[in-house]
Amino acid sequence: MIMEVIDSVREMQKRCDELHCAGRRIGLVPTMGYLHEGHLSLVRLIRGKVGEDGVVIVSIFVNPTQFGPGEDFEVYPRDFERDRRLCLREGVDLIFHPSAAEMYVPGATVYVSEDRLSRGLCGRSRPGHFRGVLTVVAKLFNIIRPDVAVFGRKDAQQLRLIERMVTDLNYPIEIVAAPIVRESDGLAMSSRNTYLSEHQRRQALCLNRALQAAEEAFAGGERDPVRLKATMASITADVPEVEVEYIEIVDWETLERLSSPIERKALAAMAARVGGTRLIDNTLLDPTAK
Amino acid sequence: MIMEVIDSVREMQKRCDELHCAGRRIGLVPTMGYLHEGHLSLVRLIRGKVGEDGVVIVSIFVNPTQFGPGEDFEVYPRDFERDRRLCLREGVDLIFHPSAAEMYVPGATVYVSEDRLSRGLCGRSRPGHFRGVLTVVAKLFNIIRPDVAVFGRKDAQQLRLIERMVTDLNYPIEIVAAPIVRESDGLAMSSRNTYLSEHQRRQALCLNRALQAAEEAFAGGERDPVRLKATMASITADVPEVEVEYIEIVDWETLERLSSPIERKALAAMAARVGGTRLIDNTLLDPTAK
Repeated sequence: MIMEVIDSVREMQKRCDELHCAGRRIGLVPTMGYLHEGHLSLVRLIRGKVGEDGVVIVSIFVNPTQFGPGEDFEVYPRDFERDRRLCLREGVDLIFHPSAAEMYVPGATVYVSEDRLSRGLCGRSRPGHFRGVLTVVAKLFNIIRPDVAVFGRKDAQQLRLIERMVTDLNYPIEIVAAPIVRESDGLAMSSRNTYLSEHQRRQALCLNRALQAAEEAFAGGERDPVRLKATMASITADVPEVEVEYIEIVDWETLERLSSPIERKALAAMAARVGGTRLIDNTLLDPTAK
Repeated sequence: MIMEVIDSVREMQKRCDELHCAGRRIGLVPTMGYLHEGHLSLVRLIRGKVGEDGVVIVSIFVNPTQFGPGEDFEVYPRDFERDRRLCLREGVDLIFHPSAAEMYVPGATVYVSEDRLSRGLCGRSRPGHFRGVLTVVAKLFNIIRPDVAVFGRKDAQQLRLIERMVTDLNYPIEIVAAPIVRESDGLAMSSRNTYLSEHQRRQALCLNRALQAAEEAFAGGERDPVRLKATMASITADVPEVEVEYIEIVDWETLERLSSPIERKALAAMAARVGGTRLIDNTLLDPTAK
């Protein structure tokens, strides 16, 4: 099968319906492009899910509605030719690459929203962000109607919201959560890492170090979220260029801040600015894990 | 084909997917049951759309999330056996009849919303109503994935919102607008008419009379929305038992209140309480119609 590139919504709906009714399982990797090893790990994961007879689709769309005023929509890195080559090399079957005008008709006023899981963490400083994410993912689901879609654990809050959307709106789609992929020095992969200078990049490593310190304390039996957060904060405090937005420990199901000892799966999550660049990272703390 | 009745979401998704991939066109008539001639006209209309080889599905679900506190959710009329017989007689192929527990998992927090067309008219007195409607219709669309769905013009604001949702969220579904069906005396059909006493029913006829008066004035060249509304109000004012909630003339596209002369398709719409019963009715005023 030759890799197809489709930029029209209508053509995409028609093609995906043909593939579906021909009995091919459809796997979707939604991205904003500027692909890195993290995205490619999602492509491999979804290929394992749909099999060699399945269809692996990568959508590449920098979604304007999930960026707030003053955020980096205009400068977000884009390089379709490079993305296309990477997809070809990974055996992707189809790229969906619509324009913003193709995805949004003027005067659109209907959106998908959530008002509990989306409140804390990144939702606090990025009002409207998750509404933009849920709406565009619902649109992609309605256009492509995949059997399975994969989302990275790095965007943990996004992942939980999409799991919630699939359940609450009855999308017949399996959601796969993919592990965080890190650079060799431990920095979580992100298209936004390209904004960092050499110096900033070294400073940014304190996010992962803080999470590792929390993991170690947790492995040593520490269950108190306040002390775990203090452990993390003490590490970022040593790096003055890193401006912490939040350091939180929340319940994995509800994403609500924990104040009592961790008894079920929890998420240690943080966001920080390094120079002008906003970075996020997280790790799961699971007291039930063996 | 024998008429099927399915009450499970998962079974419904599987069955509809089989039918779709077997090349059968799927037509959906979403209802809250207690079917009347208006609903049956929708069934006939959708049969014409999908053809004899197509599948006509009627969903029957009294959706709790579109009723506000103090509204008539508990007492809304229900009679599944009667509905089943009527569907059978009309040649419906499949009834989807889920329970509330089947449709809503506990803790659901994701919804579909709209914040312009939904503000005025019925949205003003029924906050949350259209969010409930859009969410349940999105769920039905995700479960059934129809090719075409029909909505009555009596719920004009709902119709416009669903047309908007289908466009904005890229549902590959044709929406058909069905004409209002009236009793022989002119009362717009509604399952809620069953709440009315004989006396109240006669009073309720003033809604249709007011709309007819507006139509006549419009046909005679009147284009001023203020004068048209005054014409309507003068008719309902003669019936003291009828408590008008709104009498409006709005643009059909934006549903915004018109203050200048009608130049493109407009909607004359009204809501009123007769006794405890809330009734709505409307008519299109189209200056471009021949």
